[in-house]
Amino acid sequence: MAAAVAGAHGTRDHEGMEQPSAQDVSAPGRIASPGEGIDPQELALAARNHGLPLEALRYEVTPPGLHYVLVHYDIPAADPAGWSLGVGGRVRTPLALGLADLRAFPAVTHRVTMECAGNGRARLTPRPVSQPWLVEAVGTAEWTGVPLRLVLAEAGVRADAVEAVFTGADHGIERGVEQDYRRSLPVATATGDDPEVLIAYAMNGLPLPPQHGCPLRLVVPGWYGMAHVKWLREITLVDAPFTGFQQVVAYRYRSAADGPDDPGEPVTLIAPRALMVPPGFPDFMSRTRVVRPGPVPLEGRAWSGHGAVDRVEVSADGGRSWARAEVTAPGRHPWAWQAWSCVWTATPGHHTLTVRATDTEGGTQPLEQPWNRGGFGNNLVQHVPVLCC
Amino acid sequence: MAAAVAGAHGTRDHEGMEQPSAQDVSAPGRIASPGEGIDPQELALAARNHGLPLEALRYEVTPPGLHYVLVHYDIPAADPAGWSLGVGGRVRTPLALGLADLRAFPAVTHRVTMECAGNGRARLTPRPVSQPWLVEAVGTAEWTGVPLRLVLAEAGVRADAVEAVFTGADHGIERGVEQDYRRSLPVATATGDDPEVLIAYAMNGLPLPPQHGCPLRLVVPGWYGMAHVKWLREITLVDAPFTGFQQVVAYRYRSAADGPDDPGEPVTLIAPRALMVPPGFPDFMSRTRVVRPGPVPLEGRAWSGHGAVDRVEVSADGGRSWARAEVTAPGRHPWAWQAWSCVWTATPGHHTLTVRATDTEGGTQPLEQPWNRGGFGNNLVQHVPVLCC
Repeated sequence: MAAAVAGAHGTRDHEGMEQPSAQDVSAPGRIASPGEGIDPQELALAARNHGLPLEALRYEVTPPGLHYVLVHYDIPAADPAGWSLGVGGRVRTPLALGLADLRAFPAVTHRVTMECAGNGRARLTPRPVSQPWLVEAVGTAEWTGVPLRLVLAEAGVRADAVEAVFTGADHGIERGVEQDYRRSLPVATATGDDPEVLIAYAMNGLPLPPQHGCPLRLVVPGWYGMAHVKWLREITLVDAPFTGFQQVVAYRYRSAADGPDDPGEPVTLIAPRALMVPPGFPDFMSRTRVVRPGPVPLEGRAWSGHGAVDRVEVSADGGRSWARAEVTAPGRHPWAWQAWSCVWTATPGHHTLTVRATDTEGGTQPLEQPWNRGGFGNNLVQHVPVLCC
Repeated sequence: MAAAVAGAHGTRDHEGMEQPSAQDVSAPGRIASPGEGIDPQELALAARNHGLPLEALRYEVTPPGLHYVLVHYDIPAADPAGWSLGVGGRVRTPLALGLADLRAFPAVTHRVTMECAGNGRARLTPRPVSQPWLVEAVGTAEWTGVPLRLVLAEAGVRADAVEAVFTGADHGIERGVEQDYRRSLPVATATGDDPEVLIAYAMNGLPLPPQHGCPLRLVVPGWYGMAHVKWLREITLVDAPFTGFQQVVAYRYRSAADGPDDPGEPVTLIAPRALMVPPGFPDFMSRTRVVRPGPVPLEGRAWSGHGAVDRVEVSADGGRSWARAEVTAPGRHPWAWQAWSCVWTATPGHHTLTVRATDTEGGTQPLEQPWNRGGFGNNLVQHVPVLCC
């Protein structure tokens, strides 16, 4: 039995007149001042969310706990046994599906590389204040579930539906807007099979962990993480484009020149990126690497949401000259990262290693990062400082 | 097959004379300037290590991926099949034990709450620059393994042994000292059964994940995390107190008044702490909580390495008045956190909730944080800003 605590008296605002509202806890987006360090709010996000320690790029499938996690609000307390996924709106037969119902559909497993759209944000100058990722917001998992198109076929999508809206159980406030986390996909994407979107109930062969959407999440191969709605509880077919916060306010590319009312461009597919397992061993604090002179094997992973990775190049002189690395073929896993490797001959002194991926569509990584207000899709090449001695 | 990259020429130091050394990548410890935000090196640590999202305090045993992780250097690439744990030094029979050998000993499972000694460091003023934890560097797991005392009995500890030194496979540099991660315990602790120290090979019933020490780690119930050596590959009995970096340089309590050569006091047992599941729902960026007026159930966990938690108190007025919460008895798990709960009657306005644990030894949490140079053992009470509206 719980004990009781007497409540303190409510406070009024500074004019002593109005009752507070939920908007009071939520500030508009902002850009850090020149030279401003990471602030306490950004630190609180960095402490609860986490990236992939880069040495974990050595694993083709990321072990549990090393895959990146971004949670907008709180991880909901989910009861898998009582969970019900509603499918409604512009459908002929609204559905309410429990986990057993979903497991009765054919099960499909896809190996998918997932990346946060904000990866790289903390390297921007000036820095948009939000989750401060450097380069590590990525991971690859085997996701098992039901193809979304099969569930939508069962419900019968009406001809006037243009989008499917996905609602998660996570609830919070963002820039003054109280909301359930909610995102949409065009009907053609939701009912298509390239990529095949999943309603996933397992990750690496086990039920979804709480932080990855237990008991159900969307998996949209090739798209940045914001599309993979976690703790999925409702799918609503709608006859007009969805205008919710995460669709038209957040997750848009807006340039410095755009006004505050500029709609920007939607964030969708993952831009190409290669990352390296930092060679040698690190200093605890600076993370600078130390290697011995001679041949140093370099390896890592590369991926793109726009197609296979065609080419990975490595530079040991800060991007002045590049050498091609070996890249594995995508093979049976078209939506997963590809391994690359090469050998670098280290000589005594300080070096900066750089790696760059180019996909089959010709997309590649910039050496100077373009800037956008939200800090999305930042695929500036990785820089790995190394001392050879 | 890997391609080859031509090495850039080595660089000389700024005087053009000397070859670089590994010390060049490693700076002395430092204290942040007044008002200095989290720097890029601290951010890099925060992005790769991670805490427990506070809502995960709802789980009595922390699910995989939510338990805090601190890795000094890199997670080693371990091969469990070929792993060998050496036991040597001042013993009668040196041992080399594979995983099968260890599994042939009696298996014991202990539920243990583990906390990083640096938890709370980022709330200190001024802030020691290192892994910038707020309050979330904690977790509770079921650890299964062999009691260390049984392995040491098999080796036969010689009468002149005073400490056991534990060596991990993680290698790096810290403040200019290249090292394998290495810590010691007094022989009485290593061979004792209160607490019973484990050589653990499983966490929550599964083989250790890479980031938690795969395939072997030490578990020292009641001690801060630095004692629980991960990727354990060597146990060496020694006839003089161990003077390695992690024992006599790092992980010492040193006050502001102490000189740089002051040995300080060793960091050992976990100080008492209570944490609350933040009630209501959050703002994404500020993490401020929103609740509705009326009774609000509050719950959380409390622990101490010095004994059971005797009392948990909650304040809704910033620490002026306190009310007792209900606390579960430690029961069958003396080294795990205890659950606490109470009900707070929320009234409209801004509030700060605070919770404080006191253990059976009389140890409790400060309302004003004492300061030490390394930022260790900071158990200042948690503050949870809440808006009721």
